[in-house]
Amino acid sequence: MVYLTRLEHFNAAHKLYNPQWSHEQNEAVFGACANENWHGHNFDLYVTVKGEVEEATGFLIDVKKLKALILQYVIEPLDHKNLNQDVPFLKNKMCSTENLAIAIWEQLQPQLPDHITLHCVKIYETPRICVEYYGE
Amino acid sequence: MVYLTRLEHFNAAHKLYNPQWSHEQNEAVFGACANENWHGHNFDLYVTVKGEVEEATGFLIDVKKLKALILQYVIEPLDHKNLNQDVPFLKNKMCSTENLAIAIWEQLQPQLPDHITLHCVKIYETPRICVEYYGE
Amino acid sequence: MVYLTRLEHFNAAHKLYNPQWSHEQNEAVFGACANENWHGHNFDLYVTVKGEVEEATGFLIDVKKLKALILQYVIEPLDHKNLNQDVPFLKNKMCSTENLAIAIWEQLQPQLPDHITLHCVKIYETPRICVEYYGE
Amino acid sequence: MVYLTRLEHFNAAHKLYNPQWSHEQNEAVFGACANENWHGHNFDLYVTVKGEVEEATGFLIDVKKLKALILQYVIEPLDHKNLNQDVPFLKNKMCSTENLAIAIWEQLQPQLPDHITLHCVKIYETPRICVEYYGE
Amino acid sequence: MVYLTRLEHFNAAHKLYNPQWSHEQNEAVFGACANENWHGHNFDLYVTVKGEVEEATGFLIDVKKLKALILQYVIEPLDHKNLNQDVPFLKNKMCSTENLAIAIWEQLQPQLPDHITLHCVKIYETPRICVEYYGE
Amino acid sequence: MVYLTRLEHFNAAHKLYNPQWSHEQNEAVFGACANENWHGHNFDLYVTVKGEVEEATGFLIDVKKLKALILQYVIEPLDHKNLNQDVPFLKNKMCSTENLAIAIWEQLQPQLPDHITLHCVKIYETPRICVEYYGE
Repeated sequence: MVYLTRLEHFNAAHKLYNPQWSHEQNEAVFGACANENWHGHNFDLYVTVKGEVEEATGFLIDVKKLKALILQYVIEPLDHKNLNQDVPFLKNKMCSTENLAIAIWEQLQPQLPDHITLHCVKIYETPRICVEYYGE
Repeated sequence: MVYLTRLEHFNAAHKLYNPQWSHEQNEAVFGACANENWHGHNFDLYVTVKGEVEEATGFLIDVKKLKALILQYVIEPLDHKNLNQDVPFLKNKMCSTENLAIAIWEQLQPQLPDHITLHCVKIYETPRICVEYYGE
Repeated sequence: MVYLTRLEHFNAAHKLYNPQWSHEQNEAVFGACANENWHGHNFDLYVTVKGEVEEATGFLIDVKKLKALILQYVIEPLDHKNLNQDVPFLKNKMCSTENLAIAIWEQLQPQLPDHITLHCVKIYETPRICVEYYGE
Repeated sequence: MVYLTRLEHFNAAHKLYNPQWSHEQNEAVFGACANENWHGHNFDLYVTVKGEVEEATGFLIDVKKLKALILQYVIEPLDHKNLNQDVPFLKNKMCSTENLAIAIWEQLQPQLPDHITLHCVKIYETPRICVEYYGE
Repeated sequence: MVYLTRLEHFNAAHKLYNPQWSHEQNEAVFGACANENWHGHNFDLYVTVKGEVEEATGFLIDVKKLKALILQYVIEPLDHKNLNQDVPFLKNKMCSTENLAIAIWEQLQPQLPDHITLHCVKIYETPRICVEYYGE
Repeated sequence: MVYLTRLEHFNAAHKLYNPQWSHEQNEAVFGACANENWHGHNFDLYVTVKGEVEEATGFLIDVKKLKALILQYVIEPLDHKNLNQDVPFLKNKMCSTENLAIAIWEQLQPQLPDHITLHCVKIYETPRICVEYYGE
């Protein structure tokens, strides 16, 4: 079994804001991240899949195919978007990096071919903060 | 003469949108960057100053002082903000990285102590796009 | 369950030197790292915690709180210090990166809130050498 | 138990080409990577070993010894080489990064001292594509 | 005047080999780089242009247009190629990084729109070796 | 004319301490950097030389020769050393990064072959602080 990781990027706006709380409560918990006018990030997304190597190609999966799936199901809905407003699969969720990782897993997992398994979704929100989700 | 560079970061939302143009014109020119709901970036800011080394300290300038000036006059007004809406010194300007570099120069230059000279403001919008401004 | 990682830095001096050995033995084993006058590094510290996402915030833990704990219990005692001489929790230990990782784990683990679990302490001594410790 | 990782580099040419297929089939599957005149990469190799810390040294293994073993058994046969033509231990294998990781594991594992265990061979083919192999 | 830099990548095989010299002379001068079976690199290419900011857009040049020109005139002829054999504009040149930088300048400079000026072509052959060319 | 840059590393201990000042004055000016027990860094050193390309080799200078000169005259005296105590060419100088850059220039410049010119010595003390010196 080998593990293959592909890095993709997306740039997006978001805010951390619980609509069931007052403005003051949001500021107290989320600080500058609660700015109602939004802020944003360059997100780095590492997708890791695992499985057996195909003998004829030496590939787990052609990385161009994996890239195409990530672009179609994850990057296109997220890149240059407002995570709170523009993304159907984040609707009514707090836009934390934790929830983003879980949502990307749920978005991508059903689209992968049968012979590979999604192993990890890892997101760097900044070079100093990252979140990993392994599907459970 | 030596050159000293300090790196700071800020995260912000923006859009590229000329209010004198139609929505269609904005989309044609700026593409995904014109998303009315904003997108955002982790900006890396490199500030370079130059001057003579002080004999008693071996310093051009104490980098803690340079850092404090950059934080006060540049990072605080920009970090976790919406560049188009929240930043007085970007009012009525197109929020391109080019204009951002020029505005940061104009913001920071008058605040530096006399014995050093601002040499360059360099901004990475993404790891693949950067802009430099040398004050003229 | 999600994993959240925070990167912090510290700069410190150290030497690798077993006081029960002769100078020659130390030089034979540790080479340049045994320089009695010390050398030093920029250490990169990645702390990974794991647990469940809180529904109201979307957070595993507020990363600002995690950062504050790492700064108080790890970075402040280590940064701009001599690891062999200035750090109570390294007293009488060989100052290898291996021992440093274990000591940081022991320092930080009791300070974390109950709802999260320390998963990994990872230290880069240089960009080419890193050590990970998972608590057992 | 601690984990120690050492990064080494090698630069090499390769192509992805199955000699049992027609030229057209190779181009259809491997695209630009099938260029008969070769292309190449700067490969980053991370070798992770695990085990117990020695009390007298604070080391899992002296990283200089680990480096010497990686250089002798892996980097020397691969660096500035043509992976398809020059490397005995890749003979008759598809030169994918997946197979390269497995081959490096098999090359290095028997050479390590008894008190440490090879944990992972990780190769970055580009900054956006990496493969990990854990020996099974 | 502002400076805008765009980073692109290409992967290629090459060798350093002067066909007017004996094999021994080539090995003596170029060492492992003279391997007749080729080796290769991930090249990082930074293209810097300079000029005035357009008022309506805030742009020096739309970075998507600059990217398209670099891809068409530089990356497409070089990526996944053998620099010595596959690239018309390197024909009969020694494939050093120095000559590569000059050749990329000559390739790209005539294609740029009139209102911007090519300032610098910078190539990283490895993370530790880079070459810059400013057109004279 | 082309510019060639080589990156080398060294790890060292130092402190910022003016022996003509009181302990309190040193602490007031240099803060944590004045720790009498030393601290340290991984320094990144970029040496840039310039000149004409040799036709027979395509080289400005064989980068292996440049590397050997940097190792002999700069890295060997600095690596795994105490900058304040162990380095003859830093004797009686404040060990700031500014002075280190100037001292490395003076150390390296006389050793370069006639056909190339030293252009810049650039040192990163941390990933966020760098100093450049151009010889005047």
